[in-house]
Amino acid sequence: MTTTLTPAETFKRDWLDGFVGAYGRTVRKVPGAYGVVGRHVPRPGKVAVVIGGGCGHYPAFAGLVGPGLAAGAVVGDVFTSPSAEQVYRTARAADGGAGVLFAYGNYQGDVLHFGLAARRLAAEGIDSRTVLVTDDIASGPPEAPEGRRGVAGDLLVFKVAGAAAERGDDLAAVQAAAELANARTRTFGVAFDGCTLPGAREPLFTVAESQMEVGLGIHGEPGVRTVPRLSATELADVLVDGLLPELPGTDRRVVAVLNGLGRTKYEDMFATYARIHQRLAAEGLNPVHAEVGEFVTSLDMAGVSLTLLELDDELAELYAAPCDTPAFRSGGAVLDAVEPHVTTDAALATVDGEAGEGVVDRALTAALRSLEHHEGELGRLDAVAADGDHGLGMTRGMRAAVAAARQVPPDDLSGALLAAGTAFADAAGGASGALYGVLLAETGAGLRGTCPDTATLADAVDAAVRAFTELGRAEPGDKTMLDAIEPFRQALREQARAAASVAQAWRVAAERAAKAAEATADLLPTRGRAARLAERSRGHADPGATSFALLVTAVGETL
Amino acid sequence: MTTTLTPAETFKRDWLDGFVGAYGRTVRKVPGAYGVVGRHVPRPGKVAVVIGGGCGHYPAFAGLVGPGLAAGAVVGDVFTSPSAEQVYRTARAADGGAGVLFAYGNYQGDVLHFGLAARRLAAEGIDSRTVLVTDDIASGPPEAPEGRRGVAGDLLVFKVAGAAAERGDDLAAVQAAAELANARTRTFGVAFDGCTLPGAREPLFTVAESQMEVGLGIHGEPGVRTVPRLSATELADVLVDGLLPELPGTDRRVVAVLNGLGRTKYEDMFATYARIHQRLAAEGLNPVHAEVGEFVTSLDMAGVSLTLLELDDELAELYAAPCDTPAFRSGGAVLDAVEPHVTTDAALATVDGEAGEGVVDRALTAALRSLEHHEGELGRLDAVAADGDHGLGMTRGMRAAVAAARQVPPDDLSGALLAAGTAFADAAGGASGALYGVLLAETGAGLRGTCPDTATLADAVDAAVRAFTELGRAEPGDKTMLDAIEPFRQALREQARAAASVAQAWRVAAERAAKAAEATADLLPTRGRAARLAERSRGHADPGATSFALLVTAVGETL
Repeated sequence: MTTTLTPAETFKRDWLDGFVGAYGRTVRKVPGAYGVVGRHVPRPGKVAVVIGGGCGHYPAFAGLVGPGLAAGAVVGDVFTSPSAEQVYRTARAADGGAGVLFAYGNYQGDVLHFGLAARRLAAEGIDSRTVLVTDDIASGPPEAPEGRRGVAGDLLVFKVAGAAAERGDDLAAVQAAAELANARTRTFGVAFDGCTLPGAREPLFTVAESQMEVGLGIHGEPGVRTVPRLSATELADVLVDGLLPELPGTDRRVVAVLNGLGRTKYEDMFATYARIHQRLAAEGLNPVHAEVGEFVTSLDMAGVSLTLLELDDELAELYAAPCDTPAFRSGGAVLDAVEPHVTTDAALATVDGEAGEGVVDRALTAALRSLEHHEGELGRLDAVAADGDHGLGMTRGMRAAVAAARQVPPDDLSGALLAAGTAFADAAGGASGALYGVLLAETGAGLRGTCPDTATLADAVDAAVRAFTELGRAEPGDKTMLDAIEPFRQALREQARAAASVAQAWRVAAERAAKAAEATADLLPTRGRAARLAERSRGHADPGATSFALLVTAVGETL
Repeated sequence: MTTTLTPAETFKRDWLDGFVGAYGRTVRKVPGAYGVVGRHVPRPGKVAVVIGGGCGHYPAFAGLVGPGLAAGAVVGDVFTSPSAEQVYRTARAADGGAGVLFAYGNYQGDVLHFGLAARRLAAEGIDSRTVLVTDDIASGPPEAPEGRRGVAGDLLVFKVAGAAAERGDDLAAVQAAAELANARTRTFGVAFDGCTLPGAREPLFTVAESQMEVGLGIHGEPGVRTVPRLSATELADVLVDGLLPELPGTDRRVVAVLNGLGRTKYEDMFATYARIHQRLAAEGLNPVHAEVGEFVTSLDMAGVSLTLLELDDELAELYAAPCDTPAFRSGGAVLDAVEPHVTTDAALATVDGEAGEGVVDRALTAALRSLEHHEGELGRLDAVAADGDHGLGMTRGMRAAVAAARQVPPDDLSGALLAAGTAFADAAGGASGALYGVLLAETGAGLRGTCPDTATLADAVDAAVRAFTELGRAEPGDKTMLDAIEPFRQALREQARAAASVAQAWRVAAERAAKAAEATADLLPTRGRAARLAERSRGHADPGATSFALLVTAVGETL
């Protein structure tokens, strides 16, 4: 089910009004026509590139009007050619006296109406030429490319034509540049599901959930084959394998456009592009420009297409020229393409198989053992009111903390805890991961020297709990970790005043924390998320408070 | 049903690889981290604006890294805060010695992890400040805006912070600018349907087909109310009415962002913006910048949000400054906002109530009467193999043709037919509309003087049929209009050779066309679309050929 906010009757008028309202600093409406021209036109002596077609493809076509790209765009009804009258009026408004280059996708209705408009312009002494975009390899055999449809390759052909016009080329030269771009541009696409027309309650077509249509057109024209749904990597291979044999193969430089048809996730497109980039590099091709996004859509269709334009020196210069339109802007710089980057995150070192050294290592290893032992219990407590992963998160975090602390020289107690803290937060994830990370790191930050005394430890824990409270925004009684942490902190402070040893102080404080953690079962918080779940969690201890108690108890046994 | 190409396990890594591959000329990966920094950083002496959050929101956050905007972005798992370690590493890579401004949406996980990273940076002597984006008015009361979530307002706050950093402001000043922007930025949104997480088979949530959720958060956080599905106009009113009371009201200039959450059609968004623009103007507000598109998405969620930033002189300068990122680029020029444009297409003049003048008017009016009389029959013929609107299209076109021809002085036969041709194509639409338009216009172009002879007429019709064939790409026997037109043309030519009068020649030719049109019922074409429908249309005459025969027959009776 998809959504349509605008009735079919006024669809074209309504969206065009909004478009001109939003981007009125770049475009203006052609009086009495469904067309827009750039505020920069007419420009005496410059060829006017006029594009257009049915609507439902935004940013194509109106979104591509502006300096360095199209001078004007004619807007038809949804998936329907604009009429010759509209084309004529828009071209008249765009013409600066150097003639009009019409560029549009090769569809019969467009050919008819733009052709008729061209005849009327000719009768009035305005010269025009036409370049039909024919990039869709699924719509005709390679030996007859002139019969193919135009799809996302529109963007590249328009861009080249617009740059040639901006440079001041005459009409024949602008046409030649656009034809060269079209001859070297190929697109191959897939669809996962259909789009819904304005006012319609059902999609124009559907694709079975487990399948995809290879080669489907941007108006739902039938594809060349139906295949089982592919992964991003497999899809990338299908697209690249389809396009490579069609490229002229005379230059290494390509422009790659991975175009979304309307509701394909950007992240899925980028994941697909990662493989495309690798494949192109493996073929010796250098994608000097790549664009991943939505450029020629089909309303809310699900699907993507890959377009490759093999450059030559002329096209490279024209494509790299700057342009400024509502939906597509580029600067003038061409930098070398970069190699695909591969994530190099080292796998977390395992704890087992390496002897621990120093007090931090002993303490953290003991904490890890205890958390592992109670992992299931912590998970069950967490599942009462949340997603049940607290035990897993704690052991994952503590394993990373142990490994990180071991990277620090054994006599740097403060550094080891700081490293352990950020590693814990990184591996455990979530709010409780970050909060434990803060406790570890801030305690470490407060400890100086290898043998801190109880007062120093109490000061460090005070600071850590302050940071914890500041970040976590909890208060005592909210049934959070803090309900075990705060008694622990207070007990350490008392023990420091009593001049107890670190080991003695810690054990007392740990015992206080354990009791407090048990007591959270009786708390009925009145604030925040816990308050909403108070009834459900009645009688169950807070998982964070429990894991904290387990942790400090285990540490206490190593001191 | 939505599509996921990438498994949850590798989602973040895969798309980030593709992103850096595609936009490697602007960004690079932070080694060993899920984060990117601009190729332009670190820049000595400039504050580094570091943004981030969970992924699934592209272009936020990685797509907003580049000169004039963010120095770096940290990427968490889907809808999940990045870890402190990732934030730390990205900030380290971005820092140019003038400190780090962290800016991100106000979510607990992000606050924790960015906060922890800030502490670690501080321990290493790197100064940082934090600005939390809190623009979502649905997430908290106006008297406590600091508790609200950050949504699409991210874009505007980041943009202002990035511009201040680019200008060379120190850390306190960059923070102040970003805080000012956040204080004057408000967002209100609606959702029509939920998104699907990577690897999931079911959406995260759903909205009933007839409803929409007002105020729903970008991770599916519950909205403030459920309402029946609104039109674009009603929706615009809800969004504007929600936001206006929240603006400071001290300046007329605003930035408006209508943000799509993933699969809302651009055209529907523009239709909504048309009304928003009107409403803002009516309130005395001047949207000096407007952006309609996808900036902070929620995977493939259906929905939109409106963000308004009320400018002041400082913010106006910073917002207008240029920036160049993969997903958001802007130049330096600020032009005056334009008034909303209203379509001014004149309603087509009616035929009735005005006496016709001249031969063209008599001929076209007779043709119109005949077509109106046979409208239903033409529709039924068309419905055999197409959508059944041929009769409607013909009468609509001919009404416009009559009206257009009447605007031309009655002695300009050529001009009247040229005007009638483009008007017919405009009003009738579709391929057959354009083809009839070509016939009328080209015939007119070939006629000079008010009383052409038969030879001139035959030449003009020859030229018109050549143009028709060239544009329509049909051949005789394809079961198209051409199968009536070509016999008509030949008969006229024969009559001209026989020196028949125009009236005599026309009637003979019209009779030939009528017979040929009837005979199309027996054609079984082997080419093109008609070939595929040959069996279905066997025994039915071609609607185009039939309407042509009706038209020329009616015209013949007026000569």
